[in-house]
Amino acid sequence: MTSNIYIFWFGVIGTAAFAISGAMTAMRKKFDPFGVLIIGFVTAVGGGTVRDVLLKDVSVFWLEEPHFVYSIIAGTVFAMLFRKNLDMLSKSLLLFDTIGLGLYTVIGLEIGLNNGLSGMSCIILGTITGSFGGVLRDILVNEIPVIFRKEIYATVSIIGGLIYFILKTAGITDPLLQLIPILLIIVFRLAVIRFKISYPSIYNPKKARK
Amino acid sequence: MTSNIYIFWFGVIGTAAFAISGAMTAMRKKFDPFGVLIIGFVTAVGGGTVRDVLLKDVSVFWLEEPHFVYSIIAGTVFAMLFRKNLDMLSKSLLLFDTIGLGLYTVIGLEIGLNNGLSGMSCIILGTITGSFGGVLRDILVNEIPVIFRKEIYATVSIIGGLIYFILKTAGITDPLLQLIPILLIIVFRLAVIRFKISYPSIYNPKKARK
Amino acid sequence: MTSNIYIFWFGVIGTAAFAISGAMTAMRKKFDPFGVLIIGFVTAVGGGTVRDVLLKDVSVFWLEEPHFVYSIIAGTVFAMLFRKNLDMLSKSLLLFDTIGLGLYTVIGLEIGLNNGLSGMSCIILGTITGSFGGVLRDILVNEIPVIFRKEIYATVSIIGGLIYFILKTAGITDPLLQLIPILLIIVFRLAVIRFKISYPSIYNPKKARK
Repeated sequence: MTSNIYIFWFGVIGTAAFAISGAMTAMRKKFDPFGVLIIGFVTAVGGGTVRDVLLKDVSVFWLEEPHFVYSIIAGTVFAMLFRKNLDMLSKSLLLFDTIGLGLYTVIGLEIGLNNGLSGMSCIILGTITGSFGGVLRDILVNEIPVIFRKEIYATVSIIGGLIYFILKTAGITDPLLQLIPILLIIVFRLAVIRFKISYPSIYNPKKARK
Repeated sequence: MTSNIYIFWFGVIGTAAFAISGAMTAMRKKFDPFGVLIIGFVTAVGGGTVRDVLLKDVSVFWLEEPHFVYSIIAGTVFAMLFRKNLDMLSKSLLLFDTIGLGLYTVIGLEIGLNNGLSGMSCIILGTITGSFGGVLRDILVNEIPVIFRKEIYATVSIIGGLIYFILKTAGITDPLLQLIPILLIIVFRLAVIRFKISYPSIYNPKKARK
Repeated sequence: MTSNIYIFWFGVIGTAAFAISGAMTAMRKKFDPFGVLIIGFVTAVGGGTVRDVLLKDVSVFWLEEPHFVYSIIAGTVFAMLFRKNLDMLSKSLLLFDTIGLGLYTVIGLEIGLNNGLSGMSCIILGTITGSFGGVLRDILVNEIPVIFRKEIYATVSIIGGLIYFILKTAGITDPLLQLIPILLIIVFRLAVIRFKISYPSIYNPKKARK
């Protein structure tokens, strides 16, 4: 996907972090080890898989780049072994999950551009890459996807995509073009969690704004 | 997909109607604005997306034709703004949703033919195009898809597909070849709703016929 | 997919058996006849469909080989007609379902090899081909997929895939290369059911091994 060695390592770590977060969800549901692995897998690469499936002439990335599969297996086994100690790691995990969100969003955008798609389509692909792993995870564990209800996870991804295009229009080039949106997604997402930012409800007329 | 300007506009309106119906479902479940948009999106283009994904050498249509995305955003924002007044519009919406069903079915059939598939495969693609947006919507809101239980929505689509092939065999050509099945799907679907037609149950031996 | 006439017939019978098992699940949920057909369809070809969708330049197999569709329709109609007598047939059905698992796994592996993928990716494709029909069935009937919780269905498939590669490395060629893993999957799966083998729980520290 990219030859940049930093992006490669962030990708590997982000994938493992997503896999660990998926595995933790599955263990809370008392899945068997195979189920834990599948949920880890789907959480980690589900978004990129949906993106690749929507595009023509593209094989799903993890079929051709097995190091993602090994990251996932490592993350899932780690989660099963250190099940009781993961609470202590939850802040580091959240950080990696957030780095993963920023990175995945920008990777999705770039793949859209490489396929000659419009800005709108690229932003959708970036958002899918960043968020749909979690959507598929929630479908598999038979829950309504959390991003439809509680958190503005996907919005962070959309805003990151918009910033990418604004920077591009402003003539900013690699590597800042990728780095700035990734960092902004990370900062914004951490702020959302820290200050418990959420959408105004559209269901209570007094509060509704949109 | 087609250069016909009428089909273009029916497509745009049908897409917006599907998006509104999806958005209404999501608002009943108290989704946040982003969730409402996603459910509107999936309801409107989910069927065509599944169709395009099943075929090789085909990019998903809305990635390359962004006007569908704008229709969906417009329909969803409309649904959120006029949430309290949509009951008054429910008959118009049902009509557009039904036009969408007819149109989507025939578009799916034609795309199957353009890909050199058998009649059986084309009818399946037409049915998927017409019905699977609703199936994906129901999966995302964590319900058993309504078309498996209550309504003969998909059957209407299958019958429309069969009529298309009968007309084709009889030598009927454009534009009647498309128009007649679309109109018959619309009439049949409205009759199903008006007269509450449903399948005989196969679970009560006295009534079961099939 | 293959010119071998035995494999063709096992494929047809395996497909029908999977369709019958899917139809029985749908009838337990009181789906209407169309819903029963769809669940039969998804159970029978869902795994192969996911496999084909993940690969590039591949049309979904049943779009181009309509005999699978006829097998499914026949199996589903059979299940609806003999609904009350299927309990008597449950052992034969289980056998065909198991043959289907072995066969589908090896077909998935071979398709992966034909697409030049790594051993890891081929084993994943084999497992998806064998197991994901049941996963999609469970998602559609709104249950947590059974393979994540109770049975080591997918593990049987993974082990069969590993054996295939061991035999290949050992220089074994057609038709033994296919036949041995298929037979081992069948024997292992029947043993799992007969002796109620399951994963050790990872949730009770005393029993946990992995």
